[in-house]
Amino acid sequence: GKRLHTARSRNDQVALDFRLYVQQNTKNIANLLLENIKTLLNVAEKHSQTMLPGMTHLQHAQPINFGYHMLAYASMFKRDYERFMSSHERNNYSPLGCAALAGTPHNISRQITSDKLGFAAPTLNCLDTVSDRDFALEILFNISTMMMHMSRLSEELILWSASEFKWVTLSDRHATGSSIMPQKKNPDIPELLRGKTGRVNGNLVSLLTVMKGLPLAYNKDMQEDKEGVFDSVKTATLSLQVLEEMIADMTVNTENMNKACMIGHLSATDLADYLVKVANLPFRDAYHITGDAVNLAETKGLDISELSLEDLQSIDERIGEGVVALLDNRASMNARESEGGTATIRTLEQVENLRGWLRDL
Amino acid sequence: GKRLHTARSRNDQVALDFRLYVQQNTKNIANLLLENIKTLLNVAEKHSQTMLPGMTHLQHAQPINFGYHMLAYASMFKRDYERFMSSHERNNYSPLGCAALAGTPHNISRQITSDKLGFAAPTLNCLDTVSDRDFALEILFNISTMMMHMSRLSEELILWSASEFKWVTLSDRHATGSSIMPQKKNPDIPELLRGKTGRVNGNLVSLLTVMKGLPLAYNKDMQEDKEGVFDSVKTATLSLQVLEEMIADMTVNTENMNKACMIGHLSATDLADYLVKVANLPFRDAYHITGDAVNLAETKGLDISELSLEDLQSIDERIGEGVVALLDNRASMNARESEGGTATIRTLEQVENLRGWLRDL
Amino acid sequence: GKRLHTARSRNDQVALDFRLYVQQNTKNIANLLLENIKTLLNVAEKHSQTMLPGMTHLQHAQPINFGYHMLAYASMFKRDYERFMSSHERNNYSPLGCAALAGTPHNISRQITSDKLGFAAPTLNCLDTVSDRDFALEILFNISTMMMHMSRLSEELILWSASEFKWVTLSDRHATGSSIMPQKKNPDIPELLRGKTGRVNGNLVSLLTVMKGLPLAYNKDMQEDKEGVFDSVKTATLSLQVLEEMIADMTVNTENMNKACMIGHLSATDLADYLVKVANLPFRDAYHITGDAVNLAETKGLDISELSLEDLQSIDERIGEGVVALLDNRASMNARESEGGTATIRTLEQVENLRGWLRDL
Amino acid sequence: GKRLHTARSRNDQVALDFRLYVQQNTKNIANLLLENIKTLLNVAEKHSQTMLPGMTHLQHAQPINFGYHMLAYASMFKRDYERFMSSHERNNYSPLGCAALAGTPHNISRQITSDKLGFAAPTLNCLDTVSDRDFALEILFNISTMMMHMSRLSEELILWSASEFKWVTLSDRHATGSSIMPQKKNPDIPELLRGKTGRVNGNLVSLLTVMKGLPLAYNKDMQEDKEGVFDSVKTATLSLQVLEEMIADMTVNTENMNKACMIGHLSATDLADYLVKVANLPFRDAYHITGDAVNLAETKGLDISELSLEDLQSIDERIGEGVVALLDNRASMNARESEGGTATIRTLEQVENLRGWLRDL
Repeated sequence: GKRLHTARSRNDQVALDFRLYVQQNTKNIANLLLENIKTLLNVAEKHSQTMLPGMTHLQHAQPINFGYHMLAYASMFKRDYERFMSSHERNNYSPLGCAALAGTPHNISRQITSDKLGFAAPTLNCLDTVSDRDFALEILFNISTMMMHMSRLSEELILWSASEFKWVTLSDRHATGSSIMPQKKNPDIPELLRGKTGRVNGNLVSLLTVMKGLPLAYNKDMQEDKEGVFDSVKTATLSLQVLEEMIADMTVNTENMNKACMIGHLSATDLADYLVKVANLPFRDAYHITGDAVNLAETKGLDISELSLEDLQSIDERIGEGVVALLDNRASMNARESEGGTATIRTLEQVENLRGWLRDL
Repeated sequence: GKRLHTARSRNDQVALDFRLYVQQNTKNIANLLLENIKTLLNVAEKHSQTMLPGMTHLQHAQPINFGYHMLAYASMFKRDYERFMSSHERNNYSPLGCAALAGTPHNISRQITSDKLGFAAPTLNCLDTVSDRDFALEILFNISTMMMHMSRLSEELILWSASEFKWVTLSDRHATGSSIMPQKKNPDIPELLRGKTGRVNGNLVSLLTVMKGLPLAYNKDMQEDKEGVFDSVKTATLSLQVLEEMIADMTVNTENMNKACMIGHLSATDLADYLVKVANLPFRDAYHITGDAVNLAETKGLDISELSLEDLQSIDERIGEGVVALLDNRASMNARESEGGTATIRTLEQVENLRGWLRDL
Repeated sequence: GKRLHTARSRNDQVALDFRLYVQQNTKNIANLLLENIKTLLNVAEKHSQTMLPGMTHLQHAQPINFGYHMLAYASMFKRDYERFMSSHERNNYSPLGCAALAGTPHNISRQITSDKLGFAAPTLNCLDTVSDRDFALEILFNISTMMMHMSRLSEELILWSASEFKWVTLSDRHATGSSIMPQKKNPDIPELLRGKTGRVNGNLVSLLTVMKGLPLAYNKDMQEDKEGVFDSVKTATLSLQVLEEMIADMTVNTENMNKACMIGHLSATDLADYLVKVANLPFRDAYHITGDAVNLAETKGLDISELSLEDLQSIDERIGEGVVALLDNRASMNARESEGGTATIRTLEQVENLRGWLRDL
Repeated sequence: GKRLHTARSRNDQVALDFRLYVQQNTKNIANLLLENIKTLLNVAEKHSQTMLPGMTHLQHAQPINFGYHMLAYASMFKRDYERFMSSHERNNYSPLGCAALAGTPHNISRQITSDKLGFAAPTLNCLDTVSDRDFALEILFNISTMMMHMSRLSEELILWSASEFKWVTLSDRHATGSSIMPQKKNPDIPELLRGKTGRVNGNLVSLLTVMKGLPLAYNKDMQEDKEGVFDSVKTATLSLQVLEEMIADMTVNTENMNKACMIGHLSATDLADYLVKVANLPFRDAYHITGDAVNLAETKGLDISELSLEDLQSIDERIGEGVVALLDNRASMNARESEGGTATIRTLEQVENLRGWLRDL
């Protein structure tokens, strides 16, 4: 009725609702990130011995395991989680009672309403509060960064679903048949997720542009703040839900991954390393001898790991007996046991580390 | 020489250097923000009784003080500071020793180099580390948000320097004469700062776009990460330095601000509030009576604060004796003493609060 | 029923519908631009003698007329119109019959359907057509540029509505009262229009980001193309409609504009020009003498145009009799009669020029 | 010396220089696009019979030829060319003589200088001209769209260079060896080109943001216009030069492309089409029968094109004698002879069409 406006303007109410919406959804998204991390950890643990070619420049580089690969995304999502939670804490202040721009002469306690609403405290300066949209920008940026991570995983799922790879098979819920080509199964879901990056980046640019150069305090332009945030929040929420399912449901084609490790002489670096460490050669010489070994393997139609000791010694006599075992791809992978490395033992350690972090939250 | 590559690739070195650059400049920028906050606090303390019209929609709304206005920007910069420091902490992990993507078989301790370099720990997963640019995105976003704040202050300085306002006079270092119009003094510096928003937003969009959809691990596209970060860092650093000087050096034209308070019936809300609180009227009735008082003042060529008790009672008899004093602009300002409000006493409390925060850092 | 798919896939149909939507709305928006240009020309013609201070850096610079100012926006909208029409022509090709990516073995004539649908021709290469979104990017960019122009006009309307200016009064449909401050009238509509710039820029960034790095031909990411285009089209359409009304309905406060011309020594450049052209002084000397005249006027509390011949000659004897007339603001404005200049005669010529262009369309 | 300023301000000179720079580079880039189109046409003509799997969703879909694929990019670059040339024409007006914002009282002829400088005419309204940056935005957008096209071609070159594809081999100038892995050859150049999309999009966003909400006429913010344009122009120029070389120099591995056509049952749609057109079945039934044929082929470890007539008739008796020939991949490709289709005859027609367009320029 008529008394509604006493010490509480409509602006006040809208400001509060929007702040609460952002704070609540920040937590929701953070929780969905945790669900995704858990699923990635399960896949990682299961596949700590599943070898595939680690790539740089989309070229086979060194043997890694699929668990290790999944842990890269778990690590990204951990940072995303921390970003969301940090934003939540930084913006957890109550705008209620700021009125138009100057506070109110009414005898209210902003502290009490702040406490009741679960905020850390009332905001410090009402003129700032009325025109502050940092919390909205933060959730938009956090979502953009997270969706960028998801676009990378999606790109890989699309690649791995291609007939040239066949490293994973997505479930029928996430890759659907073509309406005109019965033989096709299209990775629709990861493509949609990859495309959503554009959408959420657009929302971020929108609000950054709206806020540029606005004098204090409220200007009607700022009404543009909500739609983009709602859209990015909805996008992020749905995307995280479907991603978690897709990862849990996909089939990892360990055989195909394993076969792919025989292409690209993945253990070539190990030969070079051996020549440096054991035979004590300068890196440049080691690099060239390794190149010769690669060439010999190519000539023979073999992978470098399939060369015999004779083959290797025909290139350079300083190559000793243990090298053949060393060039085995699994040996190569497990040799990378520096902290954060791909050796199965290190992979499992990383799983444990992240599980501990989850427990301690 | 030839042994350079042992357990430390060029990629490793570049990754470390870039991470250190971002971490260091994050702190530099954070420190410059503190300098700006200190200067704003000094101005705020000095002008806690300097009245000017608080605006919404660029229309005079309610009387506030200039100190209170400056504190709005101090509050923004405080959040900026916290964002930078939070990013610093979240990304303070050593990438060194990750090699190409899988870790290294060489017998190194990433923990030791991490400690020596002042990081919290080595990163968790090397595949992630090689292709992680979150730290770069964070500094770009933090700079964009900060420059957005600066663009708003700049907009206000430009407005306040216009002959229609003349609320501040920038020093000759920050507003320069026209080369063809001897009578003009242009607010070049705030205009430049406002324009820099575009530049830093562009850099943020660039890197978000580059990273979209890249498969793990390193791809040459990512070489585009540095230039934009260097440019935004340089822009932020110079901008904060010049802003601090400009605020410290500007002349606040208290007389003009004061005069402007007599335009726009700034204390009209106080009449409405009185009618609600004391005369116990519904807000809607109070709103209409206040409108009548504004109209009477307009007719008489006066501000509402200049109406006599007789004037006011001719509109509504329920307007009592104390109202004339209440409609005085300074009384109106000082009545807004809810937490975070513009009353001088609250303004000084906010200065003290921020000074305490600075001391405790 | 079941025969639906013969030689016409759903993709084909969606591609056609979207292309037609963009083409049609390109024309709609172009027509709305013409309506705005007509209204601006009417205002321009009416106010070719209404003087106001031309600004640079938001500082009074030289006297211009309001018609001339409106013509700047008419010129922008003319370029916008040309951009939209050029896009329409460049993209007026029929996608129908391209099927999945390779054309169709069915015996169809793409020429006939293209003719019937009003396209110039079928597209050249179906693989390109299936993944072409240039037409969508073009309408997004054209809208962004147009809304940027509108944001500038909106900014000026907001400034001119401020009590510091009062150069225009927006109608009550475009500036609404405050719900808590009865004395206020807020320029809501131009603020909303200014804010829409962010929204449409975001849509442009979205689609540019989505399309980056997609292999041919169709990928599900591209489904993100439509929503942003629909949103920008709707925004542009409504914005142009309301802008036209707002310009037609606003009151131009010629008296206030005229009074403002006495602030800032707007004809100072004319004195400098006189000293160069007639008295044959080097520009630098002329500049300094003019500076002295400005200072004298300031001391006397006058505008430079109010100085007497004696005043002027007290500064420099070479200042001749005709100069007082020359420093009159209207004389100063009308002296700028180079092509495209602000002299009333040139302003009316520009109105005529644009009217001729409209007639010839 | 001292007379320099007569009727020509420094602003005037800068505005002219920038306009000329943009106009000139618009033409340069347009010419580089023509060079790329020519090279693409040469490759297309040479490979009008080189079969590869046309893809949607990165899944094998239908057989096309490599010439046809290259023509998709030639078509994009043709639109790019038209966009640049259209911008050139739309902005080919001389800003010279506009002075500060109002034109000049000096007796100059803007027509004469415009003619001498090769512009179509002087600009219409000087207030607009001084603050017009549409020409700069247009070149930025045109470059962004063009680089987006290039990013798609680059993505494909990167994919096709992967060991999973090996459809093309880039020359050693465009794919360089790894510094630590002697067996690797990284597609550095297409990766760099793909990454440049981010950079040029950033420059576009920058200027759109800078221009938002600026009042007329010149404001110092606009000084931010040049660096981004210079950067995008340089990026576009170098990128087009290197792309042309890379396309001309790459080796097309026709054998590998051909082999890939036996994966994915590329002619499955032709069976469905046959069942609809000849056997007169509803599409849905045809679709299911085709699915059965695909499954049979899978069971036998064959491509659908390798099934015998008996195999096919075992699925459905209505499959007639001619079908085996029809399911041959080349036959399938050449059947797609609707306008713009992939049939070799249509591919060559498209080459001829574009050559004719080039001749008529």
